[in-house]
Amino acid sequence: MTPGRNALFIPGPTNLPDALRRAMDIALEDQRAPDFPAFTLGLFRDLKKVFKTETGQIFLFPGSGTGGWEAAITNSLSPGDKVLASVFGQFSHLWVDLCQRHGLKVEALEVDWGEGVPVDRYAALLEADKAHEIKAVLVCHNETATGVTSDVAAVRKVLNHLKHPALLMVDGVSSIASIDFRMDEWGVDLAVSGSQKGFMLPTGLSIVGASQKALEAYKTAGCPRCFFDFGDMMKTNKDGFFPYTPATTLLRGLRASVDMLLAEGLDSVFARHHRLAEGVRKAVDAWGLRLCAAEPKWYSDTVSAICVPDGFNGNDVAKLAYLRYNLSLGLGLSKVAGRVFRIGHLGSLNDLMLLQALAGAEMAMRDLGIDVAAGSGVAAAQEYYRKTAKPVDLGNAVAAAI
Amino acid sequence: MTPGRNALFIPGPTNLPDALRRAMDIALEDQRAPDFPAFTLGLFRDLKKVFKTETGQIFLFPGSGTGGWEAAITNSLSPGDKVLASVFGQFSHLWVDLCQRHGLKVEALEVDWGEGVPVDRYAALLEADKAHEIKAVLVCHNETATGVTSDVAAVRKVLNHLKHPALLMVDGVSSIASIDFRMDEWGVDLAVSGSQKGFMLPTGLSIVGASQKALEAYKTAGCPRCFFDFGDMMKTNKDGFFPYTPATTLLRGLRASVDMLLAEGLDSVFARHHRLAEGVRKAVDAWGLRLCAAEPKWYSDTVSAICVPDGFNGNDVAKLAYLRYNLSLGLGLSKVAGRVFRIGHLGSLNDLMLLQALAGAEMAMRDLGIDVAAGSGVAAAQEYYRKTAKPVDLGNAVAAAI
Amino acid sequence: MTPGRNALFIPGPTNLPDALRRAMDIALEDQRAPDFPAFTLGLFRDLKKVFKTETGQIFLFPGSGTGGWEAAITNSLSPGDKVLASVFGQFSHLWVDLCQRHGLKVEALEVDWGEGVPVDRYAALLEADKAHEIKAVLVCHNETATGVTSDVAAVRKVLNHLKHPALLMVDGVSSIASIDFRMDEWGVDLAVSGSQKGFMLPTGLSIVGASQKALEAYKTAGCPRCFFDFGDMMKTNKDGFFPYTPATTLLRGLRASVDMLLAEGLDSVFARHHRLAEGVRKAVDAWGLRLCAAEPKWYSDTVSAICVPDGFNGNDVAKLAYLRYNLSLGLGLSKVAGRVFRIGHLGSLNDLMLLQALAGAEMAMRDLGIDVAAGSGVAAAQEYYRKTAKPVDLGNAVAAAI
Amino acid sequence: MTPGRNALFIPGPTNLPDALRRAMDIALEDQRAPDFPAFTLGLFRDLKKVFKTETGQIFLFPGSGTGGWEAAITNSLSPGDKVLASVFGQFSHLWVDLCQRHGLKVEALEVDWGEGVPVDRYAALLEADKAHEIKAVLVCHNETATGVTSDVAAVRKVLNHLKHPALLMVDGVSSIASIDFRMDEWGVDLAVSGSQKGFMLPTGLSIVGASQKALEAYKTAGCPRCFFDFGDMMKTNKDGFFPYTPATTLLRGLRASVDMLLAEGLDSVFARHHRLAEGVRKAVDAWGLRLCAAEPKWYSDTVSAICVPDGFNGNDVAKLAYLRYNLSLGLGLSKVAGRVFRIGHLGSLNDLMLLQALAGAEMAMRDLGIDVAAGSGVAAAQEYYRKTAKPVDLGNAVAAAI
Repeated sequence: MTPGRNALFIPGPTNLPDALRRAMDIALEDQRAPDFPAFTLGLFRDLKKVFKTETGQIFLFPGSGTGGWEAAITNSLSPGDKVLASVFGQFSHLWVDLCQRHGLKVEALEVDWGEGVPVDRYAALLEADKAHEIKAVLVCHNETATGVTSDVAAVRKVLNHLKHPALLMVDGVSSIASIDFRMDEWGVDLAVSGSQKGFMLPTGLSIVGASQKALEAYKTAGCPRCFFDFGDMMKTNKDGFFPYTPATTLLRGLRASVDMLLAEGLDSVFARHHRLAEGVRKAVDAWGLRLCAAEPKWYSDTVSAICVPDGFNGNDVAKLAYLRYNLSLGLGLSKVAGRVFRIGHLGSLNDLMLLQALAGAEMAMRDLGIDVAAGSGVAAAQEYYRKTAKPVDLGNAVAAAI
Repeated sequence: MTPGRNALFIPGPTNLPDALRRAMDIALEDQRAPDFPAFTLGLFRDLKKVFKTETGQIFLFPGSGTGGWEAAITNSLSPGDKVLASVFGQFSHLWVDLCQRHGLKVEALEVDWGEGVPVDRYAALLEADKAHEIKAVLVCHNETATGVTSDVAAVRKVLNHLKHPALLMVDGVSSIASIDFRMDEWGVDLAVSGSQKGFMLPTGLSIVGASQKALEAYKTAGCPRCFFDFGDMMKTNKDGFFPYTPATTLLRGLRASVDMLLAEGLDSVFARHHRLAEGVRKAVDAWGLRLCAAEPKWYSDTVSAICVPDGFNGNDVAKLAYLRYNLSLGLGLSKVAGRVFRIGHLGSLNDLMLLQALAGAEMAMRDLGIDVAAGSGVAAAQEYYRKTAKPVDLGNAVAAAI
Repeated sequence: MTPGRNALFIPGPTNLPDALRRAMDIALEDQRAPDFPAFTLGLFRDLKKVFKTETGQIFLFPGSGTGGWEAAITNSLSPGDKVLASVFGQFSHLWVDLCQRHGLKVEALEVDWGEGVPVDRYAALLEADKAHEIKAVLVCHNETATGVTSDVAAVRKVLNHLKHPALLMVDGVSSIASIDFRMDEWGVDLAVSGSQKGFMLPTGLSIVGASQKALEAYKTAGCPRCFFDFGDMMKTNKDGFFPYTPATTLLRGLRASVDMLLAEGLDSVFARHHRLAEGVRKAVDAWGLRLCAAEPKWYSDTVSAICVPDGFNGNDVAKLAYLRYNLSLGLGLSKVAGRVFRIGHLGSLNDLMLLQALAGAEMAMRDLGIDVAAGSGVAAAQEYYRKTAKPVDLGNAVAAAI
Repeated sequence: MTPGRNALFIPGPTNLPDALRRAMDIALEDQRAPDFPAFTLGLFRDLKKVFKTETGQIFLFPGSGTGGWEAAITNSLSPGDKVLASVFGQFSHLWVDLCQRHGLKVEALEVDWGEGVPVDRYAALLEADKAHEIKAVLVCHNETATGVTSDVAAVRKVLNHLKHPALLMVDGVSSIASIDFRMDEWGVDLAVSGSQKGFMLPTGLSIVGASQKALEAYKTAGCPRCFFDFGDMMKTNKDGFFPYTPATTLLRGLRASVDMLLAEGLDSVFARHHRLAEGVRKAVDAWGLRLCAAEPKWYSDTVSAICVPDGFNGNDVAKLAYLRYNLSLGLGLSKVAGRVFRIGHLGSLNDLMLLQALAGAEMAMRDLGIDVAAGSGVAAAQEYYRKTAKPVDLGNAVAAAI
């Protein structure tokens, strides 16, 4: 056993807060117990607050983000349906792949990796689609592979402007509960998330929000499905039960997670993620490196993909950081494999934890011969965090605490 | 908070052994870490021992038993394929339903609830199927709703005798790791299990074994799938990775579970389940009640469905036991709702734990006016357990322990 | 590893409630942190409620009940001081022994094991002590070795009646937080408890209550001490700190324990212990055995010492129960070694848990040839528990739960 | 709840390794169970390896380091006995105070805080003590308040040279299991430790090693004692039991701790502490500050007390670090209160964890206006850690891991 603790800075799973760890460290339970509904109904109610929906419905499947994609697609579309999507990273790519395997016709726009959803190109194609053959528009809100956040609201605006009836589907796996997301206000019809990102839990739950319009589409959706069927869920969820054994341990963890998020306040959660991300970006600047995200408007507050200089391999940085310093960084995936390494900065983190990641990344880069100055990224982030830290009144600290 | 501990005797999830609870009470981890494969490859290897397969392959999906059914079906069959099945309880029923939703043509034999797979009727239909239109034969090894165990080996014998090429699919959710199961010897092509039964873990993993013949069938299987796709798993599993974020916490728990099962020895595990189940059956006799399972050959060693006398409601027994004595019993489901209550006796249990369930069931029945003598079931089980307990040498106990 | 869970029915440590287990499953912390006092001061405040004292002070030492005895003695008395005590079990005996080792002159009345503090003999000796040489009167509130509860209030009445100024010291290790105890009302000057009994925590804390009179005595107490010194504690406790590193993990557990006790209500806690103990006594009757406690007035609600028939060894019952059925019963200690075995029934327990202990004790006794009928004790307790269980409205159960 | 994790860098309690946390997250147990001795006897045996004693005996009391001091003193000395000690920090001071309260006559040499045991002055006094009135010589091996390590072997050499029969007592609370300590080789008669330092556990155990000579002294030691009495322990420990309820949870944790220490190898443990400490010292240099330890020969590998420049208050650094950055640093105590802050670097730590502490200390100092360059200490430590890190073969990393 290696002394000390692994520093986990992949973009999910995140650091598991102790309070959530404990919330799941429980006995198993009877999912048909008379008092189980009181628990689940409250959970569904409060999850809606996190998704910022009042009219939508939340579905919880044992699964992962991929399962959530599948649930969203198969419950609202039929084989042969046309969907509009864009590919600018491994996860937007995989979602398109999943759609194709389920028999959908995907218009998948290729976009430079480092940019996000091309709203103008979406607009042009939607405008041209007078017959409304496009049944759904897919938006990968936060592309985890490149650290790029897209503008969901802008896509909704286009749809509204064109009065296009397509469903708006959002992959919010690495954004919901970490980055501003507004299901109702943005008219999102299907919002996909998972337990292991902003909810700070282990992998194991697909969390899907569906609008009333999506539930209407469910009635005629022809994609075969059973495990991920909304209908079975609706029939039983309304009484607080599930059509098959739910992952009660994770549900109890999710209860604690939602409590934690709502206690901090979603706006504070988002602001915290932004501040921590900014510190990382200051470090990247100080290192003389650049992000994979091409422009500030694409910068993600949950993950930074950092380009290594030519001649170096980003995956070596991650590997060395892990093997030598017990720091887990994200690898570059697919097209950007080798070109980047990633720092996940979502979930329950604070300044010093991020500095630990920066210090370790710095050391691994220096070990490999990448020309970054020792302590430079750390110093830049330190100064930013200091400047933006909450003021503390030393004199009254103890008195106030009591 | 109610004082004391809930007595969990539903037929899964089971009592979570402390060692497994602790094995999962861990930090989250990077599923792409360089040393992750060493862990997963060993786990796959040892899971094969539990399934008793040397030539097959194990798949692990975030999911549940239902997800396992879906994986088995969609990875080996195509819409329109004919499958032979039988329905004699809620779970055999649901599996058929799942097949139908995925476009299979199911010949579903209705069987009295309380009996199991009708091997003779299977034989007749398979014999008649000269064209080999039946692509798969489904066997619910242990029907959790009625406490009935079917004879998988007999079905294999029929298939072999007829040289029928249909795939043999087994729902082993509540049998594998608790009741004798032999994937290779019985020629099982697809074996479905979940984490929350014999593996004693929380719900959250679909565990599926596939034979080489099933993997061959995969190549032409036309059912749409992505989340549960064997191919994506095979491509990444061979190097110890997964196509999407795995439920690492449960995988670590599964490692500990498999270690625990193999350390005890599968035969000892099966014998233990049989002995504990026999004690429950002695109690049922002493109560003057009868099992839902019609004959001893159907008796399940993982769950007993106990018929209440006419005029009483089995679900009231379960509800009262829970609300008054904090004992979780299984409800009667579907056709047998009200007619039975169930005692799950699988997982990490011992004599006194079972006696606790019997004592509580007895009290709840008496509270409702069911005519069973106080202490009668307990006494019958006590005597059976005493008679079959391991001998202990009191004199040398301390010395031996040191 | 043995399958299933150990059934722990020694008279402390008790079954650790899951909520307390989790409350202690935490990171270590800085005991000099600015916000630590807010935690400790609240804890001291609420502990006083459990001791039922408003004017007294609570002390928390890393230690055990024995440490608490030592703290009580050494902080209030001087070598050569005379104390009045009585011996009727292993723990009242050990307390006397501890006093003697610290140089006190102990008038230790021998009492039949099975009876408690001899109030009349105390009265006579105190009345004769016109010179007030007796500086302290010791009362073992609940003798854990014999299952005997003594009458503290009666001793206070004697002291008041005689206007005798001796300090009243009470060993409440296995009574406080389980059995009615009233520090202020009964004029207890030093009350000793530990974490591992009514507080349901692991061993590791001596918990001592001291009256203002005891704190006055502290000023002149000449017994050497340092680790257990009240003064060092008082100096730092008042600001929420400790003179040396406290056992923070147990303190956090104690916080949760006190919350749990106060949420249930002390009267409910006492009533629950009485009801569970009565069930055990019904079983003993049904077995045709008798308690070590000679008369009902001595019956303890936290532990029952059960006499085995002549020719049998109570310790064999306990050993066999452990080795064969994984049931931990209390051994007979010292004078009653072999003559009794003990069932601890304190802490977080419910009906079915107690029945498990009775079932196991029954089996072990039968294994040894003791003539008790199978199921007889269980049945007697079952019927008592049924009769006294809270009514449940089945029809509205679900509705009410939501 | 504050997001993220507290960074704990006080000199004990230390970061609780997950493996130890889990080892203690268990059910309570019967300390008189027949198989309990097998556990405890093995634990005592292996603890001797950590103390590096073959002829000595280990005692385990519920308690703390202070309790260990008391046990050592009261079991080997009598009131009025003369002991030789030296005071150069808060803990060496408190030990002297404890001796005095137990009636010993302490010759306590005042030494500048920042230096350690004055071996020459000890030698002179011992040489002058022809009558062998000095019964014990006290050595605070590692003064936690100032970060000073003393030379135990040198004191033994003096005693041997003079053939002085005094007992050699060592406070090894913050050295044993972290810094080279050799009980037999150095002729240590009483060695005191606690669970919350090198053993990485919560506070709650006094761990004391006694030589045969100390056990001989026990026979005539006149200090009153009971809770901490060696004799009661010896009588029961030899069979694997305890005279009163032991803290079983901590004992199970200690088992895991000893396993962890022995698996790593004590020499590796010491080398790791030295390397991590060196990094901290590089940072202090880079900051342009100095340690409280006056010379390199006094430098402690478990804690560094860092002097703040005149005009600044070290306790403000610690307070601000805690309140603003959730970093727990050690306060300056007693004579050096305000003049220093402390970084504990003992227990289960790695490079990046230490860098986190340095980064946070840097930020707090800059916030207060102390003139240290941002990132300077971090960079110095980074470069030292990089230079001394284990080499990693990237190419073969995965292969090797499998």
